Amino acid sequence: MSSSLVLYSYWRSSAAFRVRIALNLKGLHYETRAVHLVRDGGEQHSPEYVALNPQQLVPVLVDGDKVMTQSMAIAEYLDETHPHPPLLPADAAGKARVRAMAQIVGCDIHPIGNLRVLQQIGSQFGADDEQKSIWMRHWIAAGFQALETVLANSKETGRYCHGDTPGLADLCLVPQVYNARRWKTPLEDYPTILRIDAACMELDAFKTAMPEQQPDAPK
Amino acid sequence: MSSSLVLYSYWRSSAAFRVRIALNLKGLHYETRAVHLVRDGGEQHSPEYVALNPQQLVPVLVDGDKVMTQSMAIAEYLDETHPHPPLLPADAAGKARVRAMAQIVGCDIHPIGNLRVLQQIGSQFGADDEQKSIWMRHWIAAGFQALETVLANSKETGRYCHGDTPGLADLCLVPQVYNARRWKTPLEDYPTILRIDAACMELDAFKTAMPEQQPDAPK
Repeated sequence: MSSSLVLYSYWRSSAAFRVRIALNLKGLHYETRAVHLVRDGGEQHSPEYVALNPQQLVPVLVDGDKVMTQSMAIAEYLDETHPHPPLLPADAAGKARVRAMAQIVGCDIHPIGNLRVLQQIGSQFGADDEQKSIWMRHWIAAGFQALETVLANSKETGRYCHGDTPGLADLCLVPQVYNARRWKTPLEDYPTILRIDAACMELDAFKTAMPEQQPDAPK
Repeated sequence: MSSSLVLYSYWRSSAAFRVRIALNLKGLHYETRAVHLVRDGGEQHSPEYVALNPQQLVPVLVDGDKVMTQSMAIAEYLDETHPHPPLLPADAAGKARVRAMAQIVGCDIHPIGNLRVLQQIGSQFGADDEQKSIWMRHWIAAGFQALETVLANSKETGRYCHGDTPGLADLCLVPQVYNARRWKTPLEDYPTILRIDAACMELDAFKTAMPEQQPDAPK
């Protein structure tokens, strides 16, 4: 693959963080273009960015002439175009398990606590910072309780979410744990999640994807 | 495939609706087990159901000894175990486009307006029915504006969301349009979405998956 990869990213975005991990796990070089989600009302709302992604969310991955959105779809694209190392197991049931764990985070935790939702509960209901924290911790706890049960009760859980190879579920989980810590969510009830997060964080692919390592992170 | 398929479903759940369409498109026979999301505080919170799905959400699909959650993961499982007719195009970029459209609905519209989120804005912020309607319509409009742009601006859009075969994006879109109408969301700004919804609704696979056709729908 000779085409250049460009990632439109924001350092603290969980969804961009996922794609950075996927790119790193695949050993792919990419250029970061920072989209500041807060400054000047949010660069994701600029006409130039809206032309790339009408959803006005990060990330966008550009691969040659292809413009792609939605972090889990992008991760699967990278897995199909660069199959090794795989982000999904080979069997259909294993794939379903990994995708379901990814979607617990990617559908049922993260979007409900995204920046735009926090802005909406502020504008529609007058939620202050403390109420926003309650909201965030509520949805993170609901998702993590379920995910901890799924992980702790299955022999298919290994060093990582599925066996001993990091994949799609792990690259969703680690940014969500990072986000949970940011919101001071109590995590002691999720020992399996914390064990897997720690195992992932031993890998350079995860370390170099961390928000603080990004070119647009505050100094 | 000789194993029996059992779908834990609620007639009005968008996510269960998606899986019903996928099963129908594949021509698969399945047994419906109704999970009433409201009665008696919600049957999804019963110990029996929590043992199947710790997330306490519908749907769950049971295929022999496999218990699967998350509607988009289930649809992909059905696509892998029963490849014809396909729910995804053959090329990686096409797959990424279809998955991204599915995820605009499945990540960024539906989970933010799910029953449990409406219950939370009621309990945390005192939202009444009118405020819940404003909330619902806000997120549906944000997602549909983006999806309409994606659909209207691409030559890859055909009779359905991607070409002339109904697939993963369509089976997410149609339940969301149904939900939008339930919440009286203005839809005149989304002509491509409405055209595709109407095309889908000519197909038996979509018609027989409709909420009102389900065994647990009110008479």
